[in-house]
Amino acid sequence: MLSKAQNKYIRSLTQQKYRKEYNVFIAEGDKIAREWLNSTAEIKMVLALQDWADSYHALIARHKEAELIIVEPHQLEAVTALQTPNQVLLVVAMPAEGADLPANEWCIALEGIQDPGNMGTIIRIADWFGIKHVICSSDCADVYNPKVVQAAMGGHLRVQLHVAELDKFIASTKMPVLAAALDGESVYAMPALDAGIIMIGNESKGLPAGLMQLASHKVTIPRRGGAESLNAAVSAGILCALLVRD
Amino acid sequence: MLSKAQNKYIRSLTQQKYRKEYNVFIAEGDKIAREWLNSTAEIKMVLALQDWADSYHALIARHKEAELIIVEPHQLEAVTALQTPNQVLLVVAMPAEGADLPANEWCIALEGIQDPGNMGTIIRIADWFGIKHVICSSDCADVYNPKVVQAAMGGHLRVQLHVAELDKFIASTKMPVLAAALDGESVYAMPALDAGIIMIGNESKGLPAGLMQLASHKVTIPRRGGAESLNAAVSAGILCALLVRD
Repeated sequence: MLSKAQNKYIRSLTQQKYRKEYNVFIAEGDKIAREWLNSTAEIKMVLALQDWADSYHALIARHKEAELIIVEPHQLEAVTALQTPNQVLLVVAMPAEGADLPANEWCIALEGIQDPGNMGTIIRIADWFGIKHVICSSDCADVYNPKVVQAAMGGHLRVQLHVAELDKFIASTKMPVLAAALDGESVYAMPALDAGIIMIGNESKGLPAGLMQLASHKVTIPRRGGAESLNAAVSAGILCALLVRD
Repeated sequence: MLSKAQNKYIRSLTQQKYRKEYNVFIAEGDKIAREWLNSTAEIKMVLALQDWADSYHALIARHKEAELIIVEPHQLEAVTALQTPNQVLLVVAMPAEGADLPANEWCIALEGIQDPGNMGTIIRIADWFGIKHVICSSDCADVYNPKVVQAAMGGHLRVQLHVAELDKFIASTKMPVLAAALDGESVYAMPALDAGIIMIGNESKGLPAGLMQLASHKVTIPRRGGAESLNAAVSAGILCALLVRD
């Protein structure tokens, strides 16, 4: 049974303010919930349909700290942050911050990425290419927004997510900084690098001039057709595929 | 003034059934509306806030076939298919079908792409890389879904969109068919090609075995990290960036 207070508590977690206050976030849906339950993350609550809870009984039992609440479909519907709920919703404790910013390995830096879908997709890209750090400016979408968690498909478990003042980080790093731009050098002509920062700007405005000036290279994916730009997450994926190679 | 009947008519266009019945679709938002008004497309209606209509008076006037309706923000809010309306909404006549399927140029074939955002993003990718044809199986999201039109950012104006039986097309083509797979050859090792079909499958299931067997190459973006897969649109972008080159 889901109490009224629990219902209200979970619904409040779609807002960053309450995620910060309670120091938890939501991870939803069959696949993502299983990834989280398979990890060492601290799980606060498991809301699941009876069938799902039966199927993953052993997995849930590994988390003695978690409160298991069996819910009806309509109860999951009432609290989901997804368009359609998917069998299970976890309330997960926010991991401790404080890992150092990377000094000599590939990472992605994001300035003002607003769309949660893009943000999550970029975390998933980092996860695919084995990039261990994503550094976000404070005006990016919150990395614990339920839509970000959804789109990242478990990437939060393997990629360290930092919120930092990008200009300070970029100004102080010794790594090459490769800034996505519409008028830069062709990405196909970039030298092979062992490490570097792939920097992507806001969906409509791109990177601000100040950050662009701090870059060691302005990098462009050459256009052959008529589109004005590429989606920010697609650009990130293409730059990773072309730059982060053995 | 927007009449009750017009309000109802426009809201009905979020459904494919009514788009087919009336043979029109919606293109929304400042940037996309300007692209469409700058084209030779037949515009049926322009719903715009007064300020926007004043700013783009000359552009609207080029479309003598269009009915201009000045609306209040709350009226746009009531009919928008976007999360937040953006100044202007066009009702556009569906272009005539019937272009031949491509025989000797780069194209993208999609099987069961369900997410309208992915579908639109892939059309935008085709548009960026100068790929003139996207061929969709009948179980893909409708290419005139307002969210597809939104995500494609005007790509519909430059990319020909076909709905076709993919297995017949793939079985009959003489072009190389490069199927996105998790267990194929590395995309970095592909031979340089002048033309070909980049084939992408459903977001969670990938390509069905039958189509996979018809491919000349199974192509994989090598994974270095822990993610299970990449987003379908990101995969499409990476494959285009690596395969469609001068």
